[in-house]
Amino acid sequence: MVPHLITALSGPINELEQRVLESMPAIERWFRLEWMEHTPPFYCSVDIRNAGFKLSPVDTNLFPGGWNHLTQEMLPLAVQAAMAAIEKICPEAKNLLIIPENDTRNTFYLSNIAQLQRIFHMAGLNVRVGSIDPDVKESTRIDIPGGDTLCLEPVVRSKYRLGLKDFDPCTILLNNDLSAGAPGILEDLHEQYLLPPLHAGWTVRRKSRHFQSYEEVAKRFGKMLGIDPWLINPMYSRCGELDLDQPQGLECLTTQVDGLLTRIRKKYKEYGINEKPFVVVKADNGSHGRGILTVRDVRDLAQLERKARGKPGVAGALQGRETIIQEGVLTNERMHEAVAEPVVYMMDRYVVGGFYRVHAERGVDENLSGPGAGYVPLAFAESTRLPQPGQKPGASAPNRFYMYGVIARVALLAASYELESTDPEAETYE
Amino acid sequence: MVPHLITALSGPINELEQRVLESMPAIERWFRLEWMEHTPPFYCSVDIRNAGFKLSPVDTNLFPGGWNHLTQEMLPLAVQAAMAAIEKICPEAKNLLIIPENDTRNTFYLSNIAQLQRIFHMAGLNVRVGSIDPDVKESTRIDIPGGDTLCLEPVVRSKYRLGLKDFDPCTILLNNDLSAGAPGILEDLHEQYLLPPLHAGWTVRRKSRHFQSYEEVAKRFGKMLGIDPWLINPMYSRCGELDLDQPQGLECLTTQVDGLLTRIRKKYKEYGINEKPFVVVKADNGSHGRGILTVRDVRDLAQLERKARGKPGVAGALQGRETIIQEGVLTNERMHEAVAEPVVYMMDRYVVGGFYRVHAERGVDENLSGPGAGYVPLAFAESTRLPQPGQKPGASAPNRFYMYGVIARVALLAASYELESTDPEAETYE
Repeated sequence: MVPHLITALSGPINELEQRVLESMPAIERWFRLEWMEHTPPFYCSVDIRNAGFKLSPVDTNLFPGGWNHLTQEMLPLAVQAAMAAIEKICPEAKNLLIIPENDTRNTFYLSNIAQLQRIFHMAGLNVRVGSIDPDVKESTRIDIPGGDTLCLEPVVRSKYRLGLKDFDPCTILLNNDLSAGAPGILEDLHEQYLLPPLHAGWTVRRKSRHFQSYEEVAKRFGKMLGIDPWLINPMYSRCGELDLDQPQGLECLTTQVDGLLTRIRKKYKEYGINEKPFVVVKADNGSHGRGILTVRDVRDLAQLERKARGKPGVAGALQGRETIIQEGVLTNERMHEAVAEPVVYMMDRYVVGGFYRVHAERGVDENLSGPGAGYVPLAFAESTRLPQPGQKPGASAPNRFYMYGVIARVALLAASYELESTDPEAETYE
Repeated sequence: MVPHLITALSGPINELEQRVLESMPAIERWFRLEWMEHTPPFYCSVDIRNAGFKLSPVDTNLFPGGWNHLTQEMLPLAVQAAMAAIEKICPEAKNLLIIPENDTRNTFYLSNIAQLQRIFHMAGLNVRVGSIDPDVKESTRIDIPGGDTLCLEPVVRSKYRLGLKDFDPCTILLNNDLSAGAPGILEDLHEQYLLPPLHAGWTVRRKSRHFQSYEEVAKRFGKMLGIDPWLINPMYSRCGELDLDQPQGLECLTTQVDGLLTRIRKKYKEYGINEKPFVVVKADNGSHGRGILTVRDVRDLAQLERKARGKPGVAGALQGRETIIQEGVLTNERMHEAVAEPVVYMMDRYVVGGFYRVHAERGVDENLSGPGAGYVPLAFAESTRLPQPGQKPGASAPNRFYMYGVIARVALLAASYELESTDPEAETYE
């Protein structure tokens, strides 16, 4: 499987990894058969955490940014996958319109858009970038780091189609996660392909719904591999809207955190794991790593309550939001002595690359997104050897990224199930 | 388009290349629509010659060897394309059987088989290598250059299926061009996928039939681009079985060579090309660069006749064979001061890599295969810049390999038409 990337963790292969490597043909076949029945999201990135004893996705992004962190060497893979994706969706396509986030002062984000434009241009499409920000009223050329220039143009909406002046796309690629809601200008575009669909945006999407699908898929995957699905599945629960101003505001959160910590403790005991369990509390929709709280003890939540009364911060970010409480997964990976987590990028059903997100100032049980995070692109491993099933664990050069690509694709498949179940236009047979 | 490889020829972009680069979206769309109607050969390599004023395929190999010359960096592309190919043909596949050439004392050839095994293993299949050589009676482990070991096993044929002991493949991948005829052991395998099909072997296949399809496809491609198809199409004619022992044995060849040289001269005059026309005479079926004759003047053929009376060599190799007379295309490419021609590798519809075939002792109008040939693998170009349509020719880094990949895919498409027209099981409607 691809890509054969250098990984930071070069220690011996553990039991889970050994099982995954040995089962490669069965795993790939399983995916092939699943993709006959289910459509993969157009593109996707998955944050992975490898605790050594457990390996889980912790975030599945359906509007991935950061494509600029992939190396030049990975570009051909992304281009080839893009060709496959376009061919399936709209073979007669000539024009593709990319819709970025509205905040386009962030030139690092625009590097990501320029990279996407490059990928789809190299896949053979005319690609232009249209902003749905009402403040963008005329075409603007923006210089971005690395010497590229991006041309941002205002979109033009007709009754049934969205485009630019003199540019009528067959497919519209959203790189805007619609955190601020799905704008009317994107609705009722029945003549064009809008990908990912509107219900993949955060107005409709819920992390807990994704992890519900993931749990279901992980159970079947675990059954095929003969492993406890917990080894790849982070447990979770959820609460409705949080009102920290109410005396009983933390009641649900306290109950759920307590219950989840107990379930993790039980699992740690079962596997003889000598680590302190923790959970992560975050908004059930939304992104960008704001308002993420690591909780090791239910008493930590009381602090949250006191902090909320007066100053903003995590409490402010969670106030009024539905929350998901997720089993915390340690990351065992280090790059340059900083805590690191792999991020896997996919286009259509293909893993096309990845990198490490590193944060020198954060701990192994903390979220690594946000200010101070760095990105270490991964090179292709030079070794031509794959881990050989017949050899002793650790005897052959491990390529952890195969396993990461498998788990990322399990999350991708879960996202496919999730989008099917939340599709407002799905036909239901009763 | 991919792969973005370093090319030897770094001069300014000429008019044809400029047209190809500008038409990228139209070209890719054209291929997408063609592949909706036609099935690409499973894999293919195409020898390309770039004369500067003209760019042509000169050989389209449907049982490509030399996969070992692709670099490690290209492997992920080949694996991804293999996944796409397998998914389309037999998604429920677990096992793949590779059938190599019978002469397995050539360990460089076996490196090619080991590379194919690696690619399909990484695509998630159990891959084993089965010999149809009756002399291979038991499993043999063979050490090959680079430290790999290949296990060669005797095939086991049942009434309807071919496999190995305890190994029942869904798909059988032929890497044997059947120059010696299609053996009975490969016939009537209606329960399994045999790829490429038997009629792609040299018992049925004719180069002239391929170039007939190529001409047809090149005409349509040229029309789309608004170019004279001759710029990408080598003219050809053919003769029946050559009998050099007869007094009139060279009659057909002389007429055809003379006629073709005249047609080339006319084209050179039309384009103001100051080169000496030449043609290449070779067997209409078969491979391996034996019996290839470069003819600059019809009188060269008389030498062939005299030479034939007594000693073997080119004449011996052509004796009794049907021949194709093909317009010679100079190669303008040099690597390390030796004459070079690019070879493009494809899997399914995707260009997955390439290299230069170089020969220090041969001229620009000679065949570069055969003893003394070397292979220079291509690295991915480091430049992130694509040639920009808006820029002056030569102002941006050219990536000649895009154009080579396009011409190789035109030949791939021609091979698809060719195999459709020669399929003995094709249904005909009258």
